[in-house]
Amino acid sequence: MEAPATTIPVLTSKEEMRAWSRAQKKKGKTIGFVPTMGYLHEGHISLVSAARERADVVVASIYVNPTQFSANEDFDVYPRDPEADRRKLLEAGCSVVFEPESLYHIVEGADDGSNVVGRESGHPDAHETFVQVEKLQLPLCGGSRPHFFRGVATIVAKLFHIVEPDVAVFGRKDYQQWRVITRMVRDLDFPIEIVGMPIAREADGLAMSSRNARLSAESRAACLAIPRAVKWAEAEVGRGAGDAGALASEVAARIEAAGGKVDYVELRHAEHLQPVTDLRAQPTLLAVAAHFPARDRGTVRLIDNTVLQPAAA
Amino acid sequence: MEAPATTIPVLTSKEEMRAWSRAQKKKGKTIGFVPTMGYLHEGHISLVSAARERADVVVASIYVNPTQFSANEDFDVYPRDPEADRRKLLEAGCSVVFEPESLYHIVEGADDGSNVVGRESGHPDAHETFVQVEKLQLPLCGGSRPHFFRGVATIVAKLFHIVEPDVAVFGRKDYQQWRVITRMVRDLDFPIEIVGMPIAREADGLAMSSRNARLSAESRAACLAIPRAVKWAEAEVGRGAGDAGALASEVAARIEAAGGKVDYVELRHAEHLQPVTDLRAQPTLLAVAAHFPARDRGTVRLIDNTVLQPAAA
Repeated sequence: MEAPATTIPVLTSKEEMRAWSRAQKKKGKTIGFVPTMGYLHEGHISLVSAARERADVVVASIYVNPTQFSANEDFDVYPRDPEADRRKLLEAGCSVVFEPESLYHIVEGADDGSNVVGRESGHPDAHETFVQVEKLQLPLCGGSRPHFFRGVATIVAKLFHIVEPDVAVFGRKDYQQWRVITRMVRDLDFPIEIVGMPIAREADGLAMSSRNARLSAESRAACLAIPRAVKWAEAEVGRGAGDAGALASEVAARIEAAGGKVDYVELRHAEHLQPVTDLRAQPTLLAVAAHFPARDRGTVRLIDNTVLQPAAA
Repeated sequence: MEAPATTIPVLTSKEEMRAWSRAQKKKGKTIGFVPTMGYLHEGHISLVSAARERADVVVASIYVNPTQFSANEDFDVYPRDPEADRRKLLEAGCSVVFEPESLYHIVEGADDGSNVVGRESGHPDAHETFVQVEKLQLPLCGGSRPHFFRGVATIVAKLFHIVEPDVAVFGRKDYQQWRVITRMVRDLDFPIEIVGMPIAREADGLAMSSRNARLSAESRAACLAIPRAVKWAEAEVGRGAGDAGALASEVAARIEAAGGKVDYVELRHAEHLQPVTDLRAQPTLLAVAAHFPARDRGTVRLIDNTVLQPAAA
């Protein structure tokens, strides 16, 4: 009998990763995959558990993807803690972790290696192929970060080709990302099942995020206005509420009353994210983003969402 | 002993095609793939032969891809002859032919089913994911047909996900297409080897094309000016010629002197297709397109190309 592993195997090259996956397939094993940017919390770990339930072996990847950042964003200071991540993944029953150094083609001497949008090499041999989900990439997060979902779809396509999983698990906290990936997989015929897991929440209802640790004690209490407003909206629509504009206003008012600064409250078709007016006509995504004061300085941007199910007719 | 098949197996759904490929892989067979739009000539058949040399079994696909046509192009009248194509593929030793009816997601009642650019459905559930090779798609054929390589890269990505080949064979007659696919495969980490085969030529040097049959008797002789000018350019550069502008002018003059109407004569870096000025600095693509009178009415557009190798220093 093998002793339980005390460290998780770390694969760092595309070739190693693909060879591992193909060896598993030869043994008849199915492969589950959880792509992450690291700095893992319980939300990520719940995705690993979901993958374990659906596949024989599980790969998690940790890769901070430059092409979904732009030059004025926080790529260089994105938090990293690979040691802690590996420990958590081992405990969660993950089989291996894929930690590539760079996944984009680098032209020696002509490239700064970052591939951050606006900072990437202009060399004609540099990476230049991108996948775009042309409509779903536009609203919500795509409005303020037009490069974002191009980078997400492209890195996920690359990871799918390297890991070759049977099933891949995403969190519905990043709801638009999950819709973009699901649509990409349908449209490009990837032979992969996409699973979207519900938002993992703290006992008091706050959506899990590594950012929550940055909230002041007062904010940590006040920001519960977000999950409470979300719950209230679910109940309202369950009771037959139909007016999208009125519901959005009330959700925003409840968060502002608690001291939050609302970034957006949006109501959109749950599948294709086009705007809706009548909440009784289809399942509707309610997506919220709001700032609350941080413990140090500035604010913490929190997001939450739910799918509002209309009352049975 | 099995009798030789008298008809080639025809697969028409994605599911059938993928199941066939996976069954071959289970038997340990490698898969070669030749994607085509049908109406096959000897040039295509040479690609099937090349695939047979590199893989245990060979899939050819016949699919006229709407997304690489625009509304004012000839999608609806693109020539089709599936019976003849199947016979030729069987003779060439192809294992199966994939002839899907449609490969794009159709929204019932909201879609005309064509997905031709400018005529596609605006429905938010319609196909919307595209692969773009953002620099290589721009010059040459991409200048006059800006939608073209977006459609090509997208359909090839879809076919790769359905057929799951180990090696795929393309003709270098469509040189830019071969470069676009090669770059896409590198950038998106497809686990597929791409082979580009030299142009298949008639005994007298004319590049094979189903369009050649449309030339008048006089044009059929006169258009040999194209392959002759290409050969002349190869020899010139082999002798040390370096001035790209002068070489292009002379190639154009030789074709015009024979009665052709030149569409373009271009000299570009053989890998990334950026313009070049000094032919001694790198291998250079010479790409030619010219019209000659047709036997019926109008003209026939002929293309040819070669990679000019500078003289050894």
